[in-house]
Amino acid sequence: MKFTKMHGCGNDYVYVNGFEETVQDPEKAAVFISDRHFGVGSDGLIIIRPSRTADCFMDMYNADGSRGKMCGNGIRCVAKYVYDHGMVQKERMTVETLSGVKTLDLHVKDGKVETVRVDMGSPVLEPEKISVRPREADGCLISEKKPYGRVILDAPLNVNGQSWPVTCVSMGNPHCVTRVRDPYGLDLPAIGPHFEHHPIFPEGVNTEFIHVDDRENVRMRVWERGSGETWACGTGACAVGVACILNGWTDRKVLVHLRGGDLLVEWDEEKNTVFMTGPAVTVFEGEIRL
Amino acid sequence: MKFTKMHGCGNDYVYVNGFEETVQDPEKAAVFISDRHFGVGSDGLIIIRPSRTADCFMDMYNADGSRGKMCGNGIRCVAKYVYDHGMVQKERMTVETLSGVKTLDLHVKDGKVETVRVDMGSPVLEPEKISVRPREADGCLISEKKPYGRVILDAPLNVNGQSWPVTCVSMGNPHCVTRVRDPYGLDLPAIGPHFEHHPIFPEGVNTEFIHVDDRENVRMRVWERGSGETWACGTGACAVGVACILNGWTDRKVLVHLRGGDLLVEWDEEKNTVFMTGPAVTVFEGEIRL
Repeated sequence: MKFTKMHGCGNDYVYVNGFEETVQDPEKAAVFISDRHFGVGSDGLIIIRPSRTADCFMDMYNADGSRGKMCGNGIRCVAKYVYDHGMVQKERMTVETLSGVKTLDLHVKDGKVETVRVDMGSPVLEPEKISVRPREADGCLISEKKPYGRVILDAPLNVNGQSWPVTCVSMGNPHCVTRVRDPYGLDLPAIGPHFEHHPIFPEGVNTEFIHVDDRENVRMRVWERGSGETWACGTGACAVGVACILNGWTDRKVLVHLRGGDLLVEWDEEKNTVFMTGPAVTVFEGEIRL
Repeated sequence: MKFTKMHGCGNDYVYVNGFEETVQDPEKAAVFISDRHFGVGSDGLIIIRPSRTADCFMDMYNADGSRGKMCGNGIRCVAKYVYDHGMVQKERMTVETLSGVKTLDLHVKDGKVETVRVDMGSPVLEPEKISVRPREADGCLISEKKPYGRVILDAPLNVNGQSWPVTCVSMGNPHCVTRVRDPYGLDLPAIGPHFEHHPIFPEGVNTEFIHVDDRENVRMRVWERGSGETWACGTGACAVGVACILNGWTDRKVLVHLRGGDLLVEWDEEKNTVFMTGPAVTVFEGEIRL
């Protein structure tokens, strides 16, 4: 089977051209391929297939073989793959995912895609819809903010005996953004699990620890539920952008600096949609016998 | 640059045919290639080059770009590479390393190498030559054992407030083998560093936590100095075999079960040399632009 290894901000997948290749048992293949010592090594497997409703379909499997719905870093590489391989010759294209059809704008240089802008949809702020369940013991976290309604906005939450100011946002998955003095001075493996398993997040939560450098730049580290610290989280960067804009800490266009690279986040007020722009990189081409 | 990803018991390297390919600045290439998210992902880079004194030369670079001398798992893959690619058509071959010329016996099935037996040289038992410096506070660790002379054999060493029975062996690098009730029940990240930085090992030490299943089978976990827990350590498996034989726990042929696979260790009494036999696996072929 031929494959291409690609990454977006270090979030790396093995990409297979499903227009030409047949992958038997993709769940099993994803587990083998993703193993970083015995396989190719990746965060998962993405098979690019034909779609009836879009230019192509992103068929995504996580490293544990489970089906992935959508990945902001992965979808940029899908766009680069189909453009660079001449399969879809459009600078605006659509990609079908299990979270719906996404629209992407490709920035091309010398015939190759360098960065991609993805419409990541609308943020959700209403606590119940993010899957946040504040208890009495946690105090009054919810406030009203026009025109958004009920929100959790820079509200003090007690986590492991310390008070953290949290802003909660869903970008399809729940995020908890907290502003700290020095994200890189934090012992994330020690504190991350206390956020992830905090009782107000019954489905767990992804936590972003951020520092606002100025009105256009934010640094972040992320603790992803089920994965621990990762070098990049696309929805996390979007949640950070939304939280910073909501709190008035930044303008509506924020460059989010993650460990694995930078993502530009824009929250379009009129359409109420978040655009994320970031790099897509081809690392190598390979061939493996499964 | 064309490359092949191979592993021995999960100890994985990127292999390049230095007879055909030129690698500019291999230290820098090793750092980029080894990165598991932004590069190919491996424990390092091995360039197979012509040799004046052997069938080929194993030019090895660790993931941090430093030069590697020798790797028991890596050299088996070198043998498989040159045999399977028709470069050296011998079932007994020699490979030059920075630790000298090694002799290897290849076990071939259907024209491809499956396992390789490596002459790993003589173990060193004299404490000073292993770089062990027992202090008075640690009690009398050294004993005499004929015909070996001064040895540290199943002697109680206080590590982090607990007494551990240790046997010390050098296979070119220092090893401390300790027998425990349940290697997989241990919190290795907590205990490993206390062995590694114990004052009696001025250059650090690799520690093997073992369970003797019967006279031919031993299970082990290893904490490597500078690397933490790894899935396989070739010299560590040899040190375990030597320690078990010295203590009379096993026969002279021991199958050592590591997390990443099994290695057969034989200590030839007459020649005083240790033979290690294990698998060599090709995972995939790739091509990358550096």
